[in-house]
Amino acid sequence: MKWIANEGDERDVVVSSRVRLARNLKEWYFPSRMTPLQGSEVYEKIVNSANYGETNAFKMKDIPKIEQHMLVEKHVISPTLLMNQEISGFIMNKDETETIMINEEDHIRIQVLTAGLSLQQSYLKANQIDDFLESHLNYAFDEKLGFLTACPTNLGTGLRASVMLHLPALEMTKEINQLITMLNQFGLAVRGVYGEGTKALGSLYQLSNQSTLGDKEEGIVQKIEQLCRQIAAKEKDSRKKLLENNGVYFEDKIYRAYGLLKHTRTISAEEAVKLISLVKLGINLGLIENNTIELMDQLFVQIQPANIQYLSRQEMTSDERDVKRAQILRERIK
Amino acid sequence: MKWIANEGDERDVVVSSRVRLARNLKEWYFPSRMTPLQGSEVYEKIVNSANYGETNAFKMKDIPKIEQHMLVEKHVISPTLLMNQEISGFIMNKDETETIMINEEDHIRIQVLTAGLSLQQSYLKANQIDDFLESHLNYAFDEKLGFLTACPTNLGTGLRASVMLHLPALEMTKEINQLITMLNQFGLAVRGVYGEGTKALGSLYQLSNQSTLGDKEEGIVQKIEQLCRQIAAKEKDSRKKLLENNGVYFEDKIYRAYGLLKHTRTISAEEAVKLISLVKLGINLGLIENNTIELMDQLFVQIQPANIQYLSRQEMTSDERDVKRAQILRERIK
Repeated sequence: MKWIANEGDERDVVVSSRVRLARNLKEWYFPSRMTPLQGSEVYEKIVNSANYGETNAFKMKDIPKIEQHMLVEKHVISPTLLMNQEISGFIMNKDETETIMINEEDHIRIQVLTAGLSLQQSYLKANQIDDFLESHLNYAFDEKLGFLTACPTNLGTGLRASVMLHLPALEMTKEINQLITMLNQFGLAVRGVYGEGTKALGSLYQLSNQSTLGDKEEGIVQKIEQLCRQIAAKEKDSRKKLLENNGVYFEDKIYRAYGLLKHTRTISAEEAVKLISLVKLGINLGLIENNTIELMDQLFVQIQPANIQYLSRQEMTSDERDVKRAQILRERIK
Repeated sequence: MKWIANEGDERDVVVSSRVRLARNLKEWYFPSRMTPLQGSEVYEKIVNSANYGETNAFKMKDIPKIEQHMLVEKHVISPTLLMNQEISGFIMNKDETETIMINEEDHIRIQVLTAGLSLQQSYLKANQIDDFLESHLNYAFDEKLGFLTACPTNLGTGLRASVMLHLPALEMTKEINQLITMLNQFGLAVRGVYGEGTKALGSLYQLSNQSTLGDKEEGIVQKIEQLCRQIAAKEKDSRKKLLENNGVYFEDKIYRAYGLLKHTRTISAEEAVKLISLVKLGINLGLIENNTIELMDQLFVQIQPANIQYLSRQEMTSDERDVKRAQILRERIK
């Protein structure tokens, strides 16, 4: 969660920006078709080529289960990386902003994750790492198609740029539906970060590019960043209007969420995410004092199941987690 | 609300005890059939006969509307007393524990209202007032039927003894249903203090005798008081068991209610009664500190519509009351 502590642009709407590059090595099967031995060889090859800075390398199988899931909840590795643990692993820098996932769906997945709206900066960083790796490794690249990937949806640039947005006001005013339709037309996918299907728990949305083929990397990144600035402006405008037009009812919603978070003795992750979202909105609007947006962004993650168990250094039942979650929230929220 | 500040027996279950005696004057029509002139004469006659202590007399029509309803909410006068305002009125002592309602359904309704379980004491006091009035007035009395009353349900002793009970635990365990059936078999009526029909908002139940004919006054009063002690013991036992068996879930319910009451910006009377009830239970069990049972009993009444308007010295819309109610709760609850 170290990346959350960093400053970032448009931080009151944009939680984080992530750039991911998919790369593969020439003359090796894709991870899904490799033998354990081949997987190990590729893992070693990549780790040995990645001494571009102060990083650590981890084999997935050496990491305790709870810790693995905690890393997924923190968004620093993908759930797919847990699938083929015999051969998968990752390289990560100290503040957990840069990850190279090894033998996930592709041999290499470079991920740069930063707080706030910082796609261009994240892309530059990812590009640097990519250039470094490319100078030591033989990438699978086709002049016509671009970078070859295990799944054709990643073919071409291998780039996925995504932004996590907190859009409670646009959700309350239902403007979100129109916005999603518009973004889809721009070739962008929008999905809830938490929750199943189209339901976006805690008003947290992940926006990312769908196509990786044809567009230039810089163009994709710039387009998304520009759109996010517009969305952020729209969201902030809606927040102000909601407060102006609904005054006490709007405030009531926020203060009730705060009152509950400060006093529950047992709470599910789902309810907690919803309430944290409202309190975060309250902080943004100056209604709730003594708490920060950064704290709320941290709590979204730290109240997730594996994070709670990691903090408690033990496996816990769902009921035990709910009690621990309530305790964490009471203590951390001021 | 002055009576609530008094000490009382079984106070953690029994909110208040009330004894009411219905009496009428010989040779006068019942109030529903009196002319305004006759009504005034009876009013004056009773007021002039009631100088048994430090009391004040009020004609209903002289009291502002909000204040009238506030008195009803405080249970110191009955809603029926507002029906025929041309001729109705009341005499009341300083701490509002003793009321003589004039030209309600009957010419005289003596009411003694005290905190906690104190029916016998209330009955003795009502009896004293009754004796005093009887020595100055000519009661309508039949050797065979007893005291004559406008409605036959009050014929005989004219006595209604009632007790307000807070029974959240028996409600949660559903034991309340069995209890009500049993009490009905004993000839006692049970109804919710707040809420419509059988729904008892805030787990507040009013228990009272149905028959007034045949039984001796002392017997009725003693029987109800005895039953209430048993109910109180049962309720307290259930509370302890709920806390032991459901621990954190039970505590969570109570602390959430507390968190909401401390933070809402707008709240209906209905929701407030429910939440105050839970916080009161929390105080009883030592979970909530710095607040008293007496305060919660006061709040049950002070968050009612007329009380809020009386406090604000103005008529208010429902929305305005909801906001003021939230403010009162935030300020008064520690």
